[in-house]
Amino acid sequence: MPESHAQRRQHLRSRLHERELDAVLVTDLLNIRYLTGFTGSNAALLVHTADEPGAEPRTVLCTDGRYTAQAATQVPDLEHVIERISDLALAQRAGERAGQYRRTGFESGHVTVDGLDGMAAAAGDAVQLLRAPGLVEELRLVKDETEIDALRTACAAADLALADLIGQGGIRPGRSELQIARDLEARMLDHGAVGPSFDTIVAAGANSAIPHHRPTDAVLVRGDLVKMDFGALVDGYHSDMTRTVVVGEPADWQREIYELVHTAQAAGSAAVRADADVREVDAVARAVIAGAGYGEQFPHGLGHGVGLQIHEAPALSPRGDGRIRSGMAVTVEPGVYLPGQGGVRIEDTLVVRQSTAELLTSTTKELVAV
Amino acid sequence: MPESHAQRRQHLRSRLHERELDAVLVTDLLNIRYLTGFTGSNAALLVHTADEPGAEPRTVLCTDGRYTAQAATQVPDLEHVIERISDLALAQRAGERAGQYRRTGFESGHVTVDGLDGMAAAAGDAVQLLRAPGLVEELRLVKDETEIDALRTACAAADLALADLIGQGGIRPGRSELQIARDLEARMLDHGAVGPSFDTIVAAGANSAIPHHRPTDAVLVRGDLVKMDFGALVDGYHSDMTRTVVVGEPADWQREIYELVHTAQAAGSAAVRADADVREVDAVARAVIAGAGYGEQFPHGLGHGVGLQIHEAPALSPRGDGRIRSGMAVTVEPGVYLPGQGGVRIEDTLVVRQSTAELLTSTTKELVAV
Repeated sequence: MPESHAQRRQHLRSRLHERELDAVLVTDLLNIRYLTGFTGSNAALLVHTADEPGAEPRTVLCTDGRYTAQAATQVPDLEHVIERISDLALAQRAGERAGQYRRTGFESGHVTVDGLDGMAAAAGDAVQLLRAPGLVEELRLVKDETEIDALRTACAAADLALADLIGQGGIRPGRSELQIARDLEARMLDHGAVGPSFDTIVAAGANSAIPHHRPTDAVLVRGDLVKMDFGALVDGYHSDMTRTVVVGEPADWQREIYELVHTAQAAGSAAVRADADVREVDAVARAVIAGAGYGEQFPHGLGHGVGLQIHEAPALSPRGDGRIRSGMAVTVEPGVYLPGQGGVRIEDTLVVRQSTAELLTSTTKELVAV
Repeated sequence: MPESHAQRRQHLRSRLHERELDAVLVTDLLNIRYLTGFTGSNAALLVHTADEPGAEPRTVLCTDGRYTAQAATQVPDLEHVIERISDLALAQRAGERAGQYRRTGFESGHVTVDGLDGMAAAAGDAVQLLRAPGLVEELRLVKDETEIDALRTACAAADLALADLIGQGGIRPGRSELQIARDLEARMLDHGAVGPSFDTIVAAGANSAIPHHRPTDAVLVRGDLVKMDFGALVDGYHSDMTRTVVVGEPADWQREIYELVHTAQAAGSAAVRADADVREVDAVARAVIAGAGYGEQFPHGLGHGVGLQIHEAPALSPRGDGRIRSGMAVTVEPGVYLPGQGGVRIEDTLVVRQSTAELLTSTTKELVAV
């Protein structure tokens, strides 16, 4: 059964208990969406530690008049306050009931220096506003089945879009990077995405050697590597995939770096399992590339978490920290880039299961000649 | 002659002088773009008060290794530091040269509570980090000709897209709100936009009475009002326009509220001039609508500034504050919404000139029957 928003709030309350907080004032919109399902552009959420699922009299959502109806539909299980400046309204509410909100946490990783001043003034002296960074982000690290379903749907939209594009001859000499990027994005919409999950990268020929190239009017010619890094947005969740194809017959050097990246990607994916150290996952894939003498040509991390944001924790990189946990969704995306010639990146999105990882992006990783 | 980024930095220095700051650490990416032209996703900028255009040895841009080449191209006139955590790298740099950066401002409206801790630790005790909120935003209120050119191009892309859509019969019974929204967005790209400037609103029939409706699969039928609120993004600048058309012959009630909104929009636009109080501009248009008995059916402000953000200061609303200045770019967008029936909003983007305002969105505001 999918986890409900009420259950997520209950998990948060365990963290509040541990920190001896009476409540937390959540102001980051993605965290509010995660905890309530509310998708409006202005909101604050006050979660009280002593409430419980089905009985949350002291947990309230605030938004403004534009969203009265939407809040009623999306968040039927909480009390709503309608006020324009949501965070201050709820800080004031805590102040008016200071006996119940004496120790109230705030998201110090999101609230600005000036914003805290405003909250403190609204809450008054009887409420202590205490730093509580990352409480909700910590929960979001491990995806529940509702989230994984959304990621799966988003990844499928990207897979289907690319299959259509290739199947219908959309990658061919004479088309530009920009045309292909727009084509891919339109096809993702056709397959249920509400939009691209980030600015689509299409990089042809020498441009494919630029890791984060933005598509241009440059036109494909025979012999080009074409690197496409793109994703679909579904229910707020982001898919992320890269495939590199070749226009016509691949040259030997193209085959060589393609197979190298392919092998590194497989090795990295195989290393993604519960309890693995994130640096070691990166190191496994990096060793494949470095062993072939291309270590300097792989200048970025191996992957990152995905979810309500396109880049989330954990970072699978030499500078990462921590261990993989079951339920994390991560990308594995090694690349080799030869400046002036071309580059290859291959990227999947995976969900970590107990002893293995579930592949969400299912497009072939064999070298495709179009 | 268009204003250069170096000139914008020089204007900022006047503000720093007034506040007796040695420097300011700018960390908001839009403010950095405004001051340097840099468009990467990670940067910080340390502007020293004693530098001057053509001689800025103590003013430096920091970004990470992904953007080394881009920074060299976009910001040839400043020294670059390449570090992953840009704000901390520049705070540390100030600390290493503390004699020159003793009183360094930071953007307290953007820097988070936790972020300030990091900066203070990196800068060390010899640097005082002082709140300097809104310094760059204050400059951004008044657009220079480079900015107005970008806004003009963005507004033209939206005008042309709508003209194509209507001219080619794109608004007709049987098409859905979503299809029309996607069509408009694609046509803006055809006319030079890099994307829509916000989520396109297309609202047909009773949905047009919802001020911020999101397009659905609902299909147009004869007699529908169709409200379209959309804009194009060009060089980082956002256009914003709303037009409401009718499918087939307008009914009397539709003509009535259309003409009312049209008149209010004209009155509001005529009131947009240098030195006008923002509340009075709103009041002029609101009085037209209220005078006809529809005051309750106009539940939002009259308009807002546009620029590097789709919503910027000033707010033209009953809760606004301050006066219009020459060079501001603002929207004027009254509406009347009859729940269950339909609504009309008409919106232009204007640039304030000395004694009048220049209209950037030029699509007719006469009632169009499609």
